[in-house]
Amino acid sequence: MSYTEISYEVADGIATITLNRPQRLNAFTTTMARELIAAFDEVDADDDVRVVVMTGAGRGFCAGADLGGGADTFNAGRRPELEGAETIDGVPRDGGGTVSLRIAACTKPVIGAYNGPAVGVGVTMTLPMDIRIAAESAKFGFVFARRGIVPEAASTWFLPRVVGISQAMEWVATGRVFGPEEARAGGLVSRVVPDAELLPTAYGIAREIAENTSAVSVAVARQMLWGMLGSATPWAAHRYDSQAMFEVGRGADAAEGVAAFLEKRAAVFPGRVSKDFPPSVPRWPVRPDDY
Amino acid sequence: MSYTEISYEVADGIATITLNRPQRLNAFTTTMARELIAAFDEVDADDDVRVVVMTGAGRGFCAGADLGGGADTFNAGRRPELEGAETIDGVPRDGGGTVSLRIAACTKPVIGAYNGPAVGVGVTMTLPMDIRIAAESAKFGFVFARRGIVPEAASTWFLPRVVGISQAMEWVATGRVFGPEEARAGGLVSRVVPDAELLPTAYGIAREIAENTSAVSVAVARQMLWGMLGSATPWAAHRYDSQAMFEVGRGADAAEGVAAFLEKRAAVFPGRVSKDFPPSVPRWPVRPDDY
Amino acid sequence: MSYTEISYEVADGIATITLNRPQRLNAFTTTMARELIAAFDEVDADDDVRVVVMTGAGRGFCAGADLGGGADTFNAGRRPELEGAETIDGVPRDGGGTVSLRIAACTKPVIGAYNGPAVGVGVTMTLPMDIRIAAESAKFGFVFARRGIVPEAASTWFLPRVVGISQAMEWVATGRVFGPEEARAGGLVSRVVPDAELLPTAYGIAREIAENTSAVSVAVARQMLWGMLGSATPWAAHRYDSQAMFEVGRGADAAEGVAAFLEKRAAVFPGRVSKDFPPSVPRWPVRPDDY
Repeated sequence: MSYTEISYEVADGIATITLNRPQRLNAFTTTMARELIAAFDEVDADDDVRVVVMTGAGRGFCAGADLGGGADTFNAGRRPELEGAETIDGVPRDGGGTVSLRIAACTKPVIGAYNGPAVGVGVTMTLPMDIRIAAESAKFGFVFARRGIVPEAASTWFLPRVVGISQAMEWVATGRVFGPEEARAGGLVSRVVPDAELLPTAYGIAREIAENTSAVSVAVARQMLWGMLGSATPWAAHRYDSQAMFEVGRGADAAEGVAAFLEKRAAVFPGRVSKDFPPSVPRWPVRPDDY
Repeated sequence: MSYTEISYEVADGIATITLNRPQRLNAFTTTMARELIAAFDEVDADDDVRVVVMTGAGRGFCAGADLGGGADTFNAGRRPELEGAETIDGVPRDGGGTVSLRIAACTKPVIGAYNGPAVGVGVTMTLPMDIRIAAESAKFGFVFARRGIVPEAASTWFLPRVVGISQAMEWVATGRVFGPEEARAGGLVSRVVPDAELLPTAYGIAREIAENTSAVSVAVARQMLWGMLGSATPWAAHRYDSQAMFEVGRGADAAEGVAAFLEKRAAVFPGRVSKDFPPSVPRWPVRPDDY
Repeated sequence: MSYTEISYEVADGIATITLNRPQRLNAFTTTMARELIAAFDEVDADDDVRVVVMTGAGRGFCAGADLGGGADTFNAGRRPELEGAETIDGVPRDGGGTVSLRIAACTKPVIGAYNGPAVGVGVTMTLPMDIRIAAESAKFGFVFARRGIVPEAASTWFLPRVVGISQAMEWVATGRVFGPEEARAGGLVSRVVPDAELLPTAYGIAREIAENTSAVSVAVARQMLWGMLGSATPWAAHRYDSQAMFEVGRGADAAEGVAAFLEKRAAVFPGRVSKDFPPSVPRWPVRPDDY
């Protein structure tokens, strides 16, 4: 597939998705949303992809919604590019949400590598990623209240689960732009590294996953951990665990994993997510209208 | 409205609610509960109020339930002031809960400024606030188990969501009184400042909100972030986002917010919460019996 | 009751459960699971037990599932010891889950004292404990993906609630083994102490609870805090609070707690969990099949 506003590359089991409108600080558009969703479809369809790294080209990660429409930017009735767009309950679907929910449904872990400013949808769409690391040049802002609009990309659900309700409310109510150390202290990113070390660090974590783990195990874990956030009690998790352990435990990856450990050698897992994902484990819907 | 156990003042878009029984370290009574609820009703009814700051008069923030009733303090059958009180399921409603749930339902962000000890209901009623900051003289205690009673004010729901389940259990199981640094490390407050800087710091945050943001945007964000804590999945958030962005995005605040940003000037938002809160966004019930 | 793979002792209101297969680093077996469940049944049946401390004998806390079965360890069809084991939905119940859910249902607070490596089920079964502290010799690993299996013991529900979803995903997706400082920074343990101070520290916290609090108050708090993690809104907590405060507030512990406080003396609480736990407060089911 060919992309115009992102780039997509796979090497050594790691897919790199790069937001690629550097002349606009990678500002978010409906085209970019479509391409991101397509890229995550590729990730899920390709058993050779074990981990995703997302970053931005140039000085920015993503400056938020492209404001080229001026004061009408968020006025759906005056946005010709929304003609024919998907709707939900009679209104255009929030584009940021179609991306964030697609990332949430991915079967591979996703690492966000913020190389520069990530503001508005530029940060909210990344909340369902699993690991977020920032360069010293990164900045963040949940700036919606300063633009007279509302938090989107399902961030009202994701943000309190990632950073806690108090930190979420402070960032959203003030709408202020803040630096990477505040992001780290607040739990939005787990590490801040010099700019030159951002991608090496992200790829280091990605390789740690790709080289040491079963793809099927990681896929099950990702679907379960995010999915069980919505379960009222742990008893549902126990039912799924029991089933999944039964199905996966008699498979080739479990035999190889234990044998390799006992033999003190690296494991070579034969399992493929496309074929071996246990049917008992619920998967998040891939497309919003599947729900 | 005139109050006897609290004071209520509005200036520069900021309402200050002061617990005002300094001779009793602002110990909590049924009168104080009624007055606090009335004050938050005023906050919601007044479009000129953008943010609330709550603090205590004198040396304390709130010493907890007034124990003037001695050993019978929590024995509803021997508390004449509960005659005719509201009931739920045949018992008197927990008074702390009527306050904490009223604060949770507020459309304006609430900043707690602990000037001294906040113990028992003195701290549990503040858990639904958005930002909590402590003076160096502050102390905290979830002391219920040391008094032979149970955590209240819906704190069994709020506390683990604010500080995590492990920190919550340690504070509640020991019932110990602890200082502001332990509160900060545990996530109960975000900052500890010298006593003299407590109110200036609280008003600084309040002004940052009042001067830079759309009241409607902040109200929607507050209702959504707290409300979505209870949603099993992010898909509900996506539906609300899409509707709210459609409704708010064609409004005057969105046009002004984007125009001001592009023109590099301060925005002047015309929206009013009383008229412009989007009907699609669910609001928390204001009175317990509305639920 | 006599145990073969754990030991159980009670002194000064504190039950100590010690994983006791030191020659195998206390690796987890179906026998150990049964004995742990029986021990927690003893804890709940004995009003003289106020707090539980769990630790490991020898160099390890618990090395995870015993891999003595080799490559077939997780293959239920080739594990003779699972013959006649309890099933759920037609498959063997996950043994780690039967333990973790039994701990979750306990009416007494549980302190985990990690004296050495806690890996796989060795750490996941401890997630429903209330307080976790580590010796400097402790290590942790959610290593399932490195063994080709899946996270169990209902950890996909518990772990994100204890440490947050991002930290949970990083530890689970990489499967890496990490030290006690990373565990503390990530919120898995609240303290790291020199090895020699591990049990004294655990017993210090246990005594703080046993000597100062009402057993009934602590039991109600534990059931409510963990239970309300699953409640969509705080309104359910308010109903339970009101009922529990009504029932407990007229009891002997409340009278003693307030009187002792006002008289500045230590309280002596007469309440017993077995008789005085308020019937209005929902208790977590003790056995998985009760749910």
